[in-house]
Amino acid sequence: MRIAIDAMGGDNAPREILLGTKRALQEFDDLEVLVFGNETKVKEILPSSDRVNIVHTDEVILGTDEPARAVRRKKNASMVLMTQAVANGEAEACVSAGNTGALMAAGLFVVGRIEGIERPALAPTLPTVDGKGFLMLDLGANVDAKPEHLYQYAIMGSIYAEKVRKIQHPTIGLLNIGTEEKKGNELTKKTFQLLQQSNLNFIGNVESRDLLQGVADVVITDGFTGNMVLKSIEGTAMSVFRILKTTLTSSLKAKIGAGLLKSELMSLKNKMDYTEYGGANLFGLKAPVIKAHGSSNENAFFNALRQAIQMTSSNVPEKIKEAIVNQ
Amino acid sequence: MRIAIDAMGGDNAPREILLGTKRALQEFDDLEVLVFGNETKVKEILPSSDRVNIVHTDEVILGTDEPARAVRRKKNASMVLMTQAVANGEAEACVSAGNTGALMAAGLFVVGRIEGIERPALAPTLPTVDGKGFLMLDLGANVDAKPEHLYQYAIMGSIYAEKVRKIQHPTIGLLNIGTEEKKGNELTKKTFQLLQQSNLNFIGNVESRDLLQGVADVVITDGFTGNMVLKSIEGTAMSVFRILKTTLTSSLKAKIGAGLLKSELMSLKNKMDYTEYGGANLFGLKAPVIKAHGSSNENAFFNALRQAIQMTSSNVPEKIKEAIVNQ
Repeated sequence: MRIAIDAMGGDNAPREILLGTKRALQEFDDLEVLVFGNETKVKEILPSSDRVNIVHTDEVILGTDEPARAVRRKKNASMVLMTQAVANGEAEACVSAGNTGALMAAGLFVVGRIEGIERPALAPTLPTVDGKGFLMLDLGANVDAKPEHLYQYAIMGSIYAEKVRKIQHPTIGLLNIGTEEKKGNELTKKTFQLLQQSNLNFIGNVESRDLLQGVADVVITDGFTGNMVLKSIEGTAMSVFRILKTTLTSSLKAKIGAGLLKSELMSLKNKMDYTEYGGANLFGLKAPVIKAHGSSNENAFFNALRQAIQMTSSNVPEKIKEAIVNQ
Repeated sequence: MRIAIDAMGGDNAPREILLGTKRALQEFDDLEVLVFGNETKVKEILPSSDRVNIVHTDEVILGTDEPARAVRRKKNASMVLMTQAVANGEAEACVSAGNTGALMAAGLFVVGRIEGIERPALAPTLPTVDGKGFLMLDLGANVDAKPEHLYQYAIMGSIYAEKVRKIQHPTIGLLNIGTEEKKGNELTKKTFQLLQQSNLNFIGNVESRDLLQGVADVVITDGFTGNMVLKSIEGTAMSVFRILKTTLTSSLKAKIGAGLLKSELMSLKNKMDYTEYGGANLFGLKAPVIKAHGSSNENAFFNALRQAIQMTSSNVPEKIKEAIVNQ
């Protein structure tokens, strides 16, 4: 299988991107990669071979670029060329740690939507306390969503959870401000009806305060709310860790205590580490398009790439297409 | 000044409610209270006096009751009688730790809206890392909000921050999925325009990940999003503390380390303690209606009651009325 890589996207590009790719090439024998970026820099870490094809480009979409405009104007950007390789059939999937908005735009306009899918959805796997993680979508691809969109997200998320995460009859929860059936705004009330009438393993409304405890395998929400909740979780965890750090170095006694706890505190931090769970999927496109976290290190990018491999080998886009036709 | 108290609402009622009230009577010389609840139980902790008037009732609205229905049917519930005392002018404000939805319904139907206010808003003061806290509204009074509602929330929040929290020219932030002006859904885009054209100290969009760092004195959002974000913050903090606790007792070495850190860890927990910041306001009503947290202890209820006193003495509802007329 051949996967296209944007070597230039992300805070630690190209180094960590290429190290992650290198590791994937070691672990997956049938993997070939098509790498887009500055050829000299790429070759320093990942030389060309029969499994590594480098396509040189010096144009890069920056994190600060206006997404849709950048995709339209920077026609030779590594990210744009990567999605074109997928559209042309030169690669089966693609992975980038670059500008999220630009990747969504390139995915939508270059790779294209699956017929019948109204809106693609951005879906990362988020950590849970028990380490299993859960899929949440949409986290920002579509900020003014309709009930029908959320219904399609549920179908896509369920297929992914079953085929890639190997969960039998994955549970689907609707993110809402209360667990009772009649709670919520117009959007969630109508979506609740659609999900209840479906064949999915719908378990009803779930609340944002219970997400990290692992209330459902797949959590459905609109892109505006999803983005808000994701950033609230990130911000709170970060704030607590920051206060914890200040607290643990506030006195000599505290420093000794913290020293004794070093390995325990590291394991705590690892439990909340998103990089173990791979990147975010852009569901609803004709081929797997994976967004690795912007600050991806080798490990995070490797996991995102592994996700692209699993999406491709389990043929997720084709399964989604079938489910939408039979909807 | 005279304030009506629902002695029977909340997980720790009536004991902690009455202890908090007792403390307020000690600290505020001009305070009189009108207490609604089981007279025998109330008297055990808070005897009648020239400053304590007890009105007996055995009817209570439960946390599990359907809010609007309970307010309609349980005409003699302590919470309903309390709001009637405010409507009749027997008390200037009221405080309850009971069913939030029921209090919102009783506030709206019994106390009534300020003329010109389209929707009341639920607004707690939330903790920040620096201990100053910030006001956020709406957190769930109105789940399908319009830009005009959010604009009125900003006016009300600004007045409260200035008059009660004594912040000069309080900063107003609009909760959104990005800080750039053009970010967001239809609701936030239109609200942004309204706030930018206003006389308020509007500082633009703020992101949920920065809330606990204290990005604005007043943060404006619709009730659906606000409720989601609040519960995400609560859930994440709780999960992190739970993992921390497990981690710190996982080995003998860890236990010794944790022992040395005991006072530091307690101060960390206190920093995140909502009870220091009082209750939630129901803004937009003719008189102050304060919702103390459902699990209020003496300290939390005292702070909520103090908030009602400050709201009353700074005449916040009248100031809101004037601002809305001149809008």
